[in-house]
Amino acid sequence: MSLEAAMRRAIELSERVKGTTYPNPPVGAVILDRDGEVAGIGATEPAGGPHAEVLALRRAGERAVGGTAVVTLEPCNHHGRTPPCVDALLAAGVAAVRYAVEDPNPVAAGGSTRLAEHGVSAEAGLLADDVAGGPLREWLHKQRTGRPHVTWKYAASIDGRSAAADGTSQWITGEAARADVHRRRAVIDAIVVGTGTVFADDPALTARLPDGTLADRQPLRVVVGEREISSEARVLNDDSRTMVIRTRDPLEVVRALSDRTDVLIEGGPTLAGAFLRAGAIDRIVAYVAPILLGGPVTAVDDVGVLSIAQARRWRFDGTERLGADLRLSLVPA
Amino acid sequence: MSLEAAMRRAIELSERVKGTTYPNPPVGAVILDRDGEVAGIGATEPAGGPHAEVLALRRAGERAVGGTAVVTLEPCNHHGRTPPCVDALLAAGVAAVRYAVEDPNPVAAGGSTRLAEHGVSAEAGLLADDVAGGPLREWLHKQRTGRPHVTWKYAASIDGRSAAADGTSQWITGEAARADVHRRRAVIDAIVVGTGTVFADDPALTARLPDGTLADRQPLRVVVGEREISSEARVLNDDSRTMVIRTRDPLEVVRALSDRTDVLIEGGPTLAGAFLRAGAIDRIVAYVAPILLGGPVTAVDDVGVLSIAQARRWRFDGTERLGADLRLSLVPA
Ligand SMILES: NC(=O)c1ccc[n+]([C@@H]2O[C@H](COP(=O)([O-])OP(=O)(O)OC[C@H]3O[C@@H](n4cnc5c(N)ncnc54)[C@H](OP(=O)(O)O)[C@@H]3O)[C@@H](O)[C@H]2O)c1
Ligand SMILES: NC(=O)c1ccc[n+]([C@@H]2O[C@H](COP(=O)([O-])OP(=O)(O)OC[C@H]3O[C@@H](n4cnc5c(N)ncnc54)[C@H](OP(=O)(O)O)[C@@H]3O)[C@@H](O)[C@H]2O)c1
Repeated sequence: MSLEAAMRRAIELSERVKGTTYPNPPVGAVILDRDGEVAGIGATEPAGGPHAEVLALRRAGERAVGGTAVVTLEPCNHHGRTPPCVDALLAAGVAAVRYAVEDPNPVAAGGSTRLAEHGVSAEAGLLADDVAGGPLREWLHKQRTGRPHVTWKYAASIDGRSAAADGTSQWITGEAARADVHRRRAVIDAIVVGTGTVFADDPALTARLPDGTLADRQPLRVVVGEREISSEARVLNDDSRTMVIRTRDPLEVVRALSDRTDVLIEGGPTLAGAFLRAGAIDRIVAYVAPILLGGPVTAVDDVGVLSIAQARRWRFDGTERLGADLRLSLVPA
Repeated sequence: MSLEAAMRRAIELSERVKGTTYPNPPVGAVILDRDGEVAGIGATEPAGGPHAEVLALRRAGERAVGGTAVVTLEPCNHHGRTPPCVDALLAAGVAAVRYAVEDPNPVAAGGSTRLAEHGVSAEAGLLADDVAGGPLREWLHKQRTGRPHVTWKYAASIDGRSAAADGTSQWITGEAARADVHRRRAVIDAIVVGTGTVFADDPALTARLPDGTLADRQPLRVVVGEREISSEARVLNDDSRTMVIRTRDPLEVVRALSDRTDVLIEGGPTLAGAFLRAGAIDRIVAYVAPILLGGPVTAVDDVGVLSIAQARRWRFDGTERLGADLRLSLVPA
């Protein structure tokens, strides 16, 4: 297997554990033996469990000697709840380490230098953009800024409406798009709406499987706004925990979620507009249905832009068909 | 070359003459010799000139004998301004004809039957959807309905705004998208706006090359609405012809353009809404920029939909990146 193919496999492995590794990053690792055959694979276990490299090395056993470790993140060099991965790589006798992105955390970094000191060739950069924009995007953002990564997700018609004139919005998008939303909910750390969405739709905000049952993992549910919501609201049911934040300040919400990494805003136009105006959105995911609705209910009303020259530029970083619908993903340009 | 590859080549050839063949369809043809090598290619010349098959046969000469003609449309069987293509195919001695779609025009059809009667194997269906949804879409629509094919084109932000709150809209999309619009304008037969767009933007509505000069071919410009526009309006300049239709009835506009095939609506939200409510739009092409604008100026206001259940379903039949922007194409589902 080529190094690039091995890295793609490591990316896949890391995607699968996304959301389960807090506070550790979701990392994937593949050990290739001397002949370039896959000898072991691994992905970060939940906190306290082994890191990706350690798991993969364990599975590779003797075959790691003289082989290459392909890892999505620079192997850590510090004693946390587990010993440094660099020690495990040196003990296993690998000849080379190829990783995608450097560890931005000064405490954990330095792994590459230490490997080199022990004669193990260590090199960064393999599929770095795929990893930094993909499985590690939210974790890297958190490391660099100290704040959770915030994604605004919405569903709309091609003319940007999130409901018809009479308020009906079930269902704008089809089954495949809705299943995708539920898969994402099971991976993120928190899901945020405004009180307006609770009053209008009374959503449960849980991650459900296609058969309607609850996914294993549920995000923290967060309701933002000054009004009191009914104790009967579904968002307060026992299916997951719920945080009510009595504010209209997006930055206060971000602060209240500072121990989280991956936050999803699923609110209506009011909350989305407030977060956008505050510059508190790091990614936009739009589910676009092939219909026209017209009318007054737009996905967002006021984003703080008066003139075209003021508009913040984003960049499409993904366009995918989901059944009849499109999923557009955008990041700051 | 495989038959499918030859048909793809024929499709490319036909795309290049789109807009120049009225009232004939833009057809592409490839002649393969006995060994499956390309012996000649052709595409419909302007009215009165040779049809695609005839040109391709001429270029193939003796090599056509025992070969296969691959054509996007069933070869015609009637004497118009030129003799029937079927005669030319028989005279050239081809052994087989493969075409994509049948000729819906009863006068020209029957080509396939006559070929078969003369021992030439004739078969329809090769890449039929690509041709019927692509180069021949507008012409087939015209043959079947007697009306021109109407495309609504607009440029908008991802939140469906066609201008910022202060009315500025230059430029929502980037250079690549604008160049694409100008390429299309040079191919279509007529471009329609409402008086509102003339008053607001005073557009010239010409097809221009990237260097700003006029393209060889210019569409008829059409202004719709009851108000009188200024004789100084750029849309009335000498760069092309202009038709002013003093009505607010989309169907009257369609009737006035009944001798055209490929019509583009580039109007504002009022005209677009009127055409959509009248069911007079056959395709939507949206140029979507990776920006958010918010505010009151939406690409379309009233499409006659009150409740989500009433929304007409379209189908994405193309998603393409143009520079930083996306071009979404939709056809009725
Ligand atoms: N298509 C979609 O993707 C989607 C998703 C969610 C909702 N929706 C639709 O959106 C509609 C609800 O819209 P909405 O805008 O009322 O919902 P919302 O944005 O979820 O909630 C609005 C509330 O958020 C609070 N809030 C928080 N920060 C604020 C700020 N900076 N400024 C003002 N208010 C702030 C306010 O609550 P207080 O007044 O309590 O302070 C406000 O009333 C429903 O029709 C729902 O179906 C659509
Ligand atoms: N982003 C884009 O793709 C794009 C494209 C074009 C325009 N625009 C923007 O759109 C804005 C202009 O919007 P607009 O809606 O005024 O332009 P419009 O739709 O081109 O023109 C509106 C006019 O069309 C006439 N009309 C024709 N059929 C009608 C009907 N069934 N009902 C009512 N009126 C009908 C009316 O003229 P009478 O009053 O004379 O009868 C009406 O005032 C400008 O800001 C322009 O920049 C954007």
